[in-house]
Amino acid sequence: MAYKTDIEIAREAKKQPIKEIGEKLGIAFENLVPYGHDKAKVNQDFINSVQDRPNGKLILVTAINPTPAGEGKTTTTVGLGDGLNRIGKKAAICIREASLGPNFGMKGGAAGGGMAQIVPMEDMNLHFTGDFHAITAAHNLLAAMIDNHIYWGNELEIDERRVTWRRVLDMNDRALRDVVTSLGGVANGFPRQTGFDITVASEVMAILCLSTSLDDLEKRLGDMIVAYRRDRSPIYCRDIKADGAMTVLLKDAMQPNLVQTLENNPAFVHGGPFANIAHGCNSVIATTTALKLADFVVTEAGFGADLGAEKFMNIKCRKAGLAPDCVVLVATVRAMKMNGGVAKADLGAENVDAVKAGCANLGRHIGNLKSFGVPVVVAINHFVTDTEAEIQAVKDYVKTQGSEAILSRHWELGSEGSAELATRVAKIAESGASQFAPLYPDDMPLFQKIERIAKSIYHADEVLADAKIRAQLREWEEAGYGNLPICMAKTQYSFTTDPNRRGAPTGHSVPVREVRLSAGAGFVVVICGEIMTMPGLPRVPASETIRLNDEGLIEGLF
Amino acid sequence: MAYKTDIEIAREAKKQPIKEIGEKLGIAFENLVPYGHDKAKVNQDFINSVQDRPNGKLILVTAINPTPAGEGKTTTTVGLGDGLNRIGKKAAICIREASLGPNFGMKGGAAGGGMAQIVPMEDMNLHFTGDFHAITAAHNLLAAMIDNHIYWGNELEIDERRVTWRRVLDMNDRALRDVVTSLGGVANGFPRQTGFDITVASEVMAILCLSTSLDDLEKRLGDMIVAYRRDRSPIYCRDIKADGAMTVLLKDAMQPNLVQTLENNPAFVHGGPFANIAHGCNSVIATTTALKLADFVVTEAGFGADLGAEKFMNIKCRKAGLAPDCVVLVATVRAMKMNGGVAKADLGAENVDAVKAGCANLGRHIGNLKSFGVPVVVAINHFVTDTEAEIQAVKDYVKTQGSEAILSRHWELGSEGSAELATRVAKIAESGASQFAPLYPDDMPLFQKIERIAKSIYHADEVLADAKIRAQLREWEEAGYGNLPICMAKTQYSFTTDPNRRGAPTGHSVPVREVRLSAGAGFVVVICGEIMTMPGLPRVPASETIRLNDEGLIEGLF
Repeated sequence: MAYKTDIEIAREAKKQPIKEIGEKLGIAFENLVPYGHDKAKVNQDFINSVQDRPNGKLILVTAINPTPAGEGKTTTTVGLGDGLNRIGKKAAICIREASLGPNFGMKGGAAGGGMAQIVPMEDMNLHFTGDFHAITAAHNLLAAMIDNHIYWGNELEIDERRVTWRRVLDMNDRALRDVVTSLGGVANGFPRQTGFDITVASEVMAILCLSTSLDDLEKRLGDMIVAYRRDRSPIYCRDIKADGAMTVLLKDAMQPNLVQTLENNPAFVHGGPFANIAHGCNSVIATTTALKLADFVVTEAGFGADLGAEKFMNIKCRKAGLAPDCVVLVATVRAMKMNGGVAKADLGAENVDAVKAGCANLGRHIGNLKSFGVPVVVAINHFVTDTEAEIQAVKDYVKTQGSEAILSRHWELGSEGSAELATRVAKIAESGASQFAPLYPDDMPLFQKIERIAKSIYHADEVLADAKIRAQLREWEEAGYGNLPICMAKTQYSFTTDPNRRGAPTGHSVPVREVRLSAGAGFVVVICGEIMTMPGLPRVPASETIRLNDEGLIEGLF
Repeated sequence: MAYKTDIEIAREAKKQPIKEIGEKLGIAFENLVPYGHDKAKVNQDFINSVQDRPNGKLILVTAINPTPAGEGKTTTTVGLGDGLNRIGKKAAICIREASLGPNFGMKGGAAGGGMAQIVPMEDMNLHFTGDFHAITAAHNLLAAMIDNHIYWGNELEIDERRVTWRRVLDMNDRALRDVVTSLGGVANGFPRQTGFDITVASEVMAILCLSTSLDDLEKRLGDMIVAYRRDRSPIYCRDIKADGAMTVLLKDAMQPNLVQTLENNPAFVHGGPFANIAHGCNSVIATTTALKLADFVVTEAGFGADLGAEKFMNIKCRKAGLAPDCVVLVATVRAMKMNGGVAKADLGAENVDAVKAGCANLGRHIGNLKSFGVPVVVAINHFVTDTEAEIQAVKDYVKTQGSEAILSRHWELGSEGSAELATRVAKIAESGASQFAPLYPDDMPLFQKIERIAKSIYHADEVLADAKIRAQLREWEEAGYGNLPICMAKTQYSFTTDPNRRGAPTGHSVPVREVRLSAGAGFVVVICGEIMTMPGLPRVPASETIRLNDEGLIEGLF
């Protein structure tokens, strides 16, 4: 049987007018800000008006450590949302927006896959509703104002060698990683070395995704540290007086975007912070709004559960007062086989022993997630090559871990294929079994928080950090930042800091290379390994073949 | 009598849903792409479907050389459009979009003023429908692909010292004027000196505003010269294979934006190329579409008539096959007084002699505009301090120039104040009196075209250009660019290249400092004087006071 591609399926979607999608959540058209006929923002007044309503149930979709075999986390998120609607539940989906820049390097991604997708796919891979452009503008306004302040006399006594605020573009452009600005003479300012990051790496992006209101947004923007004086005292965005104008630039971007699945169920697609130097979840305002409008909200976290779910729990839920009612851990037979030592080329052949051998990674994630007090269901995202025996091997293993694995065929069948998963998840979420608690208290010292994550989640023996890093953490504690959560930046491919160590390793160390304070977003970034915040384009970038064909359809983007 | 500010008036506007504004022009809602409830794009299919309709009458609004007194060109454009609708004509307005960056320096501008404005003003001064962000992204994608090409082996043999394609941001940021990129080692490419311009200075902006279709857009983008080899042979955007992806990024931005006046009449606000290094008019596609939908289209050109109207006639009309049916030349009593030697502080006092003395500038513009074969009406944009005698002095003078001046009070009274002007303009436009012809033929040598403009429009004696510049022009002629029109870049404040020489000077020379080829836009830029393509922020930028107030309204932007 030949399957259609994601883009073919998406183009055949029978979209409903966004007005009707809004009505499904009780949002009158006047409270939608339409962007075309198939996208809309939900306006701030309406969001304010529903704050007293009770919350629906919150379901987090996360995954094992990713392998080249592909896990299908977003596909499962969409499929589960559709499945819940199919069994008569009022459910909404919350996922991240895509970054524009990387689409010109590798081909752009669908939001989901097969029969479990969110549309309009093309728009979501291009400008969408302009949120990222607004973030770029706000970020770069602050940069321009910093250099402008120095130019006009530097009243704040900024040490221009210690301006930490860089610039951003939503573009893969390695030439901008490291630049010298203000060349060309007196009229152009004081030359200094700086650089550009990709927009999703901006602290403004992390802030937009953690803010609960425009007031909160403005306060957090003001709190950002942008430079230091010669005496090492910090200069805040507020000192530059950029926070007000940045808030004005971001006021529309703060409104969550509403779109739909192939099955015409509502989906919020809003915000997209990096999953390494930031927390990697869609916006708090989208999730909290969805919880007021739907009985079930299905959302996802970036990377594998060791990074994504950990940050979802310890950063997003902590900051926003959220508590997940159920976690769905996505796994595939293929990924189990790769964890069991099978090469990608050989994944087509049945290999039950490899599946069994590869289940350890899955098992550790189950245990980790349970340690947050939340019930865990494993969703086996079905591939058409999976055999009965392989699927059964995963199910049997999961049972030994005190959990349950359910096969879900949403990719092939849409909600018909995910109804069983949805039924089980709804029952657990409604049971009230969840006893969510974050992994560490606010008042634990910063270094101990890092150790807690490394030992409890990564199952490492120790955290390695030199005296300078430990001193920096103590300094921040003395400056009043000791209550912040930790945002770990390490490889997503392993519980360790070595991307090649699959499975469930023990006995390893977690070396900390660098720590950074995101004072506005409100977390301490702990960097373990190389983190690239401005990607480059490949030898033959996708952009060389992207074009409009004679029918006006986009070719080469997918 | 106390008058309300522009922003106060704009906020009290009783806007109609954009659906209804579209209906006035016969555009069904399904053919609009809404952005909120008060903005929309007109979709490409609809535009294609009306191409066989006859054109309405085209009215160009231009002005004398600007003075610090203010002329009110856009205000008159809006007032005239409302006036035409008031007297029962089906009229639409076409103006340019505002650039975001400068609004953070000086306060943002209204689109019009008083009772003659286009709304929503806030959106139009912020992200609007994202067109400029799309241009920024398309421009910078090409830049990234050029450096990427060099990085991966430089098959095209680009001389990295001769990459002419810079980057852009819609931001006033002097630190980016002159930068060195690709520092930091092998992984970041080859270090080279380059810089950023503001987005409106991008050739992509000029191209978007001159293209008649997406196919035309793609071809023109491909034609852009982005670098040279060591042997000086050009590298085109097409060689970099960026034209297709840039077109995809620009496909929504190519659709004209529809908004409304305070009196709920339709206005297209689309495109905004620089008026010095580019042609300074709104998009061809907006103007040509409006001409298919309305019986009268009122549009404007940048700067004074010596630059703006000249380029409108010789570049935009030539390229798009347009012919204006009437030109409205905006003047004010105050500006006549300043041209007559009165200081700005003394403009409040009656001074008929100064008005008379200052009319020479107006007279020359009348004569220049008539030389294009188009009837000219002078609109005296009324200020409440104007006296009867002063107004009469202007009217009398204009009569001696074989034209007619009509007082228009749209700023104070809206269309009630512009009905007389509208009646007169409609009569002239409908009379068929216009015999439009551009100033020079396509096949005139480039330097002769420059001389023709300098002598016929600026009334200069000669054009000064050194041998190198003349050789460059000849080289372009040999390369097949000799048929292009000229885009003059000189001060807007004088017929000469000296901004301080008001009135109607003669005997001057026009020194050419530099020439540039915009091969995609399709013109040769002739630079006479210093042209700044990346502004800076002032000592106390407006952005320091821009904020949302407690009611959620934007403060400080206006």
